[in-house]
Amino acid sequence: MRTVQGVLEEALERVLGEVPTLSAAGRTDAGVHARGQVVSFPWREPGPDLRRLQRSVNAMCGPEVVVTDARPAPEGFDARHSASAREYRYRIDVGPVPDPFVARFVWHRPGELSLRAMRAAARGLVGEHDFASFCRVPGQDRSTVRRLERLSVSRIGHRLEISARANAFLHQMVRSLVGTLVAVGEGRVPPGAMAEILQARDRSAAGAIAPAHGLTLELVVYGSRR
Amino acid sequence: MRTVQGVLEEALERVLGEVPTLSAAGRTDAGVHARGQVVSFPWREPGPDLRRLQRSVNAMCGPEVVVTDARPAPEGFDARHSASAREYRYRIDVGPVPDPFVARFVWHRPGELSLRAMRAAARGLVGEHDFASFCRVPGQDRSTVRRLERLSVSRIGHRLEISARANAFLHQMVRSLVGTLVAVGEGRVPPGAMAEILQARDRSAAGAIAPAHGLTLELVVYGSRR
Repeated sequence: MRTVQGVLEEALERVLGEVPTLSAAGRTDAGVHARGQVVSFPWREPGPDLRRLQRSVNAMCGPEVVVTDARPAPEGFDARHSASAREYRYRIDVGPVPDPFVARFVWHRPGELSLRAMRAAARGLVGEHDFASFCRVPGQDRSTVRRLERLSVSRIGHRLEISARANAFLHQMVRSLVGTLVAVGEGRVPPGAMAEILQARDRSAAGAIAPAHGLTLELVVYGSRR
Repeated sequence: MRTVQGVLEEALERVLGEVPTLSAAGRTDAGVHARGQVVSFPWREPGPDLRRLQRSVNAMCGPEVVVTDARPAPEGFDARHSASAREYRYRIDVGPVPDPFVARFVWHRPGELSLRAMRAAARGLVGEHDFASFCRVPGQDRSTVRRLERLSVSRIGHRLEISARANAFLHQMVRSLVGTLVAVGEGRVPPGAMAEILQARDRSAAGAIAPAHGLTLELVVYGSRR
């Protein structure tokens, strides 16, 4: 299977002469998109020619995988571990027919959803919680506590956008949050049930997992900027 | 090869029991997109169930080909012959790296273009002219005179958009107009040369033909609305 990481590694190997150990800031499972992904790898002085590296990767990867910027980072920087927050956006089209121009990036799910109920539920999820109920396979040993800093629902026309920002996300956490908010918007789950779902610490307490292709990693935050 | 017309005909055959004779308002060669395409076909009373037809076509064609509306037309209406104008838009990304989210609909052509020169050239093309120089293969017998009502160039960030509106277009005419405007924007053709290019009535007088994937048929106009 063709993956963003695989494509990047192959291109970087050509420039660097060896496969670098990549660290990526945000999860992008198969089908998930990224606009603001950040990837780092260690290099030895004097380091590669970054303009050449960028050109070469972009020439090899085609328009699907694009390096928008390449620059040296401070000693000790790691794209994943140095990140202080991630922002994802999930796009839903609730209109009767899909828009072919964005169908690859938007979940077409015809039928009205109650924004008011979804927003009320979202308020019950924001904060530092154990999100095990929203994780695909909660590990036995690792903490499933995350700080969800924002979970907002906006709408323009037939397009619903759900923005999620957290210090870090668990596996399939955004898609699971979205699936639960959609169940709330459909009236199948009461907005007040979020505390109970969180307390269950059980995947089956949350809603279905929304399809991957509606999700985009938009932004990775470094340092203390909020 | 999979074509929009082929996909539509196959789906309509299932609903109607026979392959209808389709009339489409605007040209969409391979790789060209359409947002506002209009297609008509003759039917006998009482006519098909249009909601069912729309649902069935959309279910069969997937998100790439979508029927956004289906309605009965007045006696004698023909999507192609009844249209009074067509609007196309051509999108160019002049930035250094392509945007993967729109790469299928935008021509990535890095490097600056002079908007001022392109607009001056566009003014020299608007009006009723013989556009044989902007036609792929001018027919011996058919008229190549068209009324170009608008040709405008706008820019937001790295994105250039060229809008063209005419009573009708010749084969590859918009892509040929765009290629010529790009040559003007690059400084390879003077903006004042448009009258000369039109007079040549020769394909080789105009610029190269811009790639198909940047072009979208946006709108078809019926009646006298302008």
